[in-house]
Amino acid sequence: MRNLLMTVCYDGTSYYGFQTQPGGNTIQDCLEAAIRHLTGEVVKIHGSGRTDAGVHARAQPFHFITSSQIPVERWCLALNARLPADIRVTAAEEVELDFHARRSAKRKTYRYTINANRVPDVFQRNYQLHHPGRLNISAMQKGLSYLIGTNDYTSFASRHSTKASHVRTIDEARIEVDTSLARPESRDQGVVHLYISGNGFLQHMVRIIVGTLLEVGQGKRLPEEMKQILEAKDRKAAGPTAESKGLMLWSVEYD
Amino acid sequence: MRNLLMTVCYDGTSYYGFQTQPGGNTIQDCLEAAIRHLTGEVVKIHGSGRTDAGVHARAQPFHFITSSQIPVERWCLALNARLPADIRVTAAEEVELDFHARRSAKRKTYRYTINANRVPDVFQRNYQLHHPGRLNISAMQKGLSYLIGTNDYTSFASRHSTKASHVRTIDEARIEVDTSLARPESRDQGVVHLYISGNGFLQHMVRIIVGTLLEVGQGKRLPEEMKQILEAKDRKAAGPTAESKGLMLWSVEYD
Repeated sequence: MRNLLMTVCYDGTSYYGFQTQPGGNTIQDCLEAAIRHLTGEVVKIHGSGRTDAGVHARAQPFHFITSSQIPVERWCLALNARLPADIRVTAAEEVELDFHARRSAKRKTYRYTINANRVPDVFQRNYQLHHPGRLNISAMQKGLSYLIGTNDYTSFASRHSTKASHVRTIDEARIEVDTSLARPESRDQGVVHLYISGNGFLQHMVRIIVGTLLEVGQGKRLPEEMKQILEAKDRKAAGPTAESKGLMLWSVEYD
Repeated sequence: MRNLLMTVCYDGTSYYGFQTQPGGNTIQDCLEAAIRHLTGEVVKIHGSGRTDAGVHARAQPFHFITSSQIPVERWCLALNARLPADIRVTAAEEVELDFHARRSAKRKTYRYTINANRVPDVFQRNYQLHHPGRLNISAMQKGLSYLIGTNDYTSFASRHSTKASHVRTIDEARIEVDTSLARPESRDQGVVHLYISGNGFLQHMVRIIVGTLLEVGQGKRLPEEMKQILEAKDRKAAGPTAESKGLMLWSVEYD
């Protein structure tokens, strides 16, 4: 028996998230079907975590136990030949039997992308939230800074969260603005990437943070309110959940 | 009556090219339907040229004559509200009545994109040809240089071309390699963008040039053969027509 750790990249537009669900059509279903097709084995893969319907992943790790003797360097090509074009395995390695893609994860980074140009980018339309109205980016940066640290993030978690504790640590959060496609004569603000890293994220957490920060950017809230929202420990205190299509699981780190 | 010049950006994946065809489902059809919906007028738009099925445009100009009094600055938003998400009008201006988007064009630039990394980019899968095998980029650059000048490009034109003359001028052609997503440990070569500019292009011309240059990059032909292929004035002398999905109309210039 071997424990294989792989990394998958996917365009989540057509899927109900990573993890298998009664309704089917998830990334996990596609990966397990490809492994079954390749090896004949019925395996259960373990992702680094869930992603919501419509959320993308640049690099999501998963592991599974296999008795297959296929050399590790052959797996990417062999699985990719059996996967739809919007899912690709980008790396594979053998790890210790006690390694677990979710439980062993130390740090995760998500990226949320907002296109703040007047006209949306047709080539990125499934990967960006389009927000043509003026955004106060420095207010958003200031608001975001209040979320760094170890906090109870109940206000930024789905009401349906089933976790016993909502305490998590966000150790880094930053906003980068790419103005390469912005046309100043059109009041274009560029493409805003929000990167957020921490030891774990609650259901909808990044999307609620972004939905709330957009209200800060629109001038509907002051940046300082982010601190009060955290302290309220009440989902009602925060803003709406931003659309899933702008969210991408960027990376997962292990020791 | 006013003559309006607009620029359209589109993801051509789902369309049979720019120009109206008996089978329907073209960019022109969608634009004319949106204009009809907005103004009630049945207009015929004139593109800067045709594009093949599956080819994209970053910025394709088109013009049409209208009696609508809608101010020019309102057109983008109004048409975009009536267009599918893979087509967006990005600019609009009023021009002289004798301006013609195709006949007045002085210079066009196309970009062809080859992903030469081992694993394709799922987010760019409809906009890149995936070529995981080793490419000799400097041989491709040398081969491309033989095409610059004023030449009869019959060898690089579809057999179905109906043009009286196949003489065109290519004034610039270059290859840029973006290695930002390449992982050296995977023998990734990066994303290869081929930019080619000239006063006009024949049917399939850029795609046949790319299909032939790929054979140079693979070592199947010498770069110097590009000169002999040109001189042959015979489609059979050149290589295959590269897939349409990697091609994008980049820009069209006027005086």
